[in-house]
Amino acid sequence: MSKITSLVTGGAGFIGSHVVRHCLELGHEVVVLDDLSGGFEDHIPAGARFVQGSITDDQLVTSLFEEYKFTYVYHLAAYAAEGLSHFIRRFNYNNNLVGSINLINESIKHKVKCFVFTSSIAVYGAGQLPMREDMTPMPEDPYGVSKYAVELDLKAAHEMFGLNYVVFRPHNVYGENQNIGDKYRNVIGIFMNQIMQGQQLTIFGDGEQTRAFSYIDDVAIPIAHSVNTPASYNQVFNIGADKPYTVNELAKVVGACFGVEPSINYLAARNEVMHAYSDHTKAHAVFGAGSGVSLDEGIRRMAEWAKVVGARKSKEFENIEIYEKLPQGWEKAARPATIPA
Amino acid sequence: MSKITSLVTGGAGFIGSHVVRHCLELGHEVVVLDDLSGGFEDHIPAGARFVQGSITDDQLVTSLFEEYKFTYVYHLAAYAAEGLSHFIRRFNYNNNLVGSINLINESIKHKVKCFVFTSSIAVYGAGQLPMREDMTPMPEDPYGVSKYAVELDLKAAHEMFGLNYVVFRPHNVYGENQNIGDKYRNVIGIFMNQIMQGQQLTIFGDGEQTRAFSYIDDVAIPIAHSVNTPASYNQVFNIGADKPYTVNELAKVVGACFGVEPSINYLAARNEVMHAYSDHTKAHAVFGAGSGVSLDEGIRRMAEWAKVVGARKSKEFENIEIYEKLPQGWEKAARPATIPA
Repeated sequence: MSKITSLVTGGAGFIGSHVVRHCLELGHEVVVLDDLSGGFEDHIPAGARFVQGSITDDQLVTSLFEEYKFTYVYHLAAYAAEGLSHFIRRFNYNNNLVGSINLINESIKHKVKCFVFTSSIAVYGAGQLPMREDMTPMPEDPYGVSKYAVELDLKAAHEMFGLNYVVFRPHNVYGENQNIGDKYRNVIGIFMNQIMQGQQLTIFGDGEQTRAFSYIDDVAIPIAHSVNTPASYNQVFNIGADKPYTVNELAKVVGACFGVEPSINYLAARNEVMHAYSDHTKAHAVFGAGSGVSLDEGIRRMAEWAKVVGARKSKEFENIEIYEKLPQGWEKAARPATIPA
Repeated sequence: MSKITSLVTGGAGFIGSHVVRHCLELGHEVVVLDDLSGGFEDHIPAGARFVQGSITDDQLVTSLFEEYKFTYVYHLAAYAAEGLSHFIRRFNYNNNLVGSINLINESIKHKVKCFVFTSSIAVYGAGQLPMREDMTPMPEDPYGVSKYAVELDLKAAHEMFGLNYVVFRPHNVYGENQNIGDKYRNVIGIFMNQIMQGQQLTIFGDGEQTRAFSYIDDVAIPIAHSVNTPASYNQVFNIGADKPYTVNELAKVVGACFGVEPSINYLAARNEVMHAYSDHTKAHAVFGAGSGVSLDEGIRRMAEWAKVVGARKSKEFENIEIYEKLPQGWEKAARPATIPA
């Protein structure tokens, strides 16, 4: 069998680093492209080659494809702060759409065998529940719009040029290697970081919004293996956990893993959907049943990891484009001094 | 009544120059932003202020909004070669999406009263006919994807920030000021240019594809007046002519206006929809009936103008990104010498 070389963008990030590990286990040679804006070099599994850079650097992307002649592309790099995307529109589309297009262009030119794209349930918008792949996407924020545009572009690239793709729409993924220092996203990481710093947990709204929190194995394993599953080609899949929990329930589970009864600071509600959970019938039919890791067990594993890594200081996003209606708690350091509060 | 200042992007272009004229007639002060990639400075009506530059230059866009405090934005600038968009993906999304986002960002920050956006029937894809606004868009090429993404972003901007918008989806517009030197789009202009140069008319496929060719007045007048029509706010409208013609029928009408029986060179079919026409019930209810200009009359008016302007030499697009499957006739000069044919 000839050598298989895979590009994993965002491979120093949370989901990406797990995908790299599974690709190495499948015998792929792996090149990681990551700008370390959200990832960490020490998360990249040994055996992968690391190139620090951005998918928005089209010359770098072109040179990597010319050098490595990738068999497969796993595209996970994204700036995934959905709620913040209203306030960083240009940055969002440049990173999440135009960066993806650089990869699609080169994948067409170099006849990549399969382009695996990590989209999001953000493409659905606040539709009927549970979300199913045959529903009409109606994204409601720039992040969801950029993800859906990439999905549509991949479909067009398949029909015009024959580029095979697999689209995954995961949701609320958590686990080891998650960036718990990111204050804009990933409520479980935010909770753990707050608990380890002795702070109150912050919740937007009343905490009764529900999400089906998904352990990393239920997401990274199907993504890595999809290239060997021809039935998945040119298809879209929801992936993740089936059972929704309220954010208040989640706070209790996280607290228990650290032996604390959490104190909660309820902030003004954000513009977000109250309930979100997906139907995974299609993914289970093609990829088999999930890992069976429960929320209690998954959170326990992640907490063990987080206790070793320790609390990280949260970074502020530096290039907010619109300050109007920026949610409480997101605005302090980000607002330049020249703009009146 | 306080002064009304309008920005018209693409105001040196075909539809844009007509919108500028109608805005001036409505008493607006008009600033035109156009990079002259497809437009001509001498098409800009007297009385408008012209700024040469691109919507992708975010610093220029920011400075214009700060200087003029626009009441309304009419966003018509686009690189509108739908068929070519497969081969210039990055250029397409940078111009047609990220450029639009620069304008939306500033319109939010400066509380513009209405953002009028010229989308396209390309958002529909090859769905059922006639196309209606309540159908689910399913764009099939990068141009249509970028237009639909802007529509969705405007909806998100309205819901988050209260920015009012009007979206128009015109189709196959023709008339005076059209760039008849553009070989990639606008079949009527291409035909006239070919006839005036004594060439054969080129048609992709068998010429039995149908389009409802729309005279400019049926498009530019509703666009310009929409800001004064509150019932149109935050709505999407098809605009243009109702009656479809085959491209073969069109060739005969154009030939007749120049007193020739056209000779036709049938090229390999492109990846395009065979039939496309829209339902305009919604637009007629809000904006009234159309101009009543028939195809014969509209083509006659345009031909009179074209005979004065004369034939223009076609420009080649210089930055093709993907050469594979580039349609016959589009590739000659565009292909760099370093890439083997």
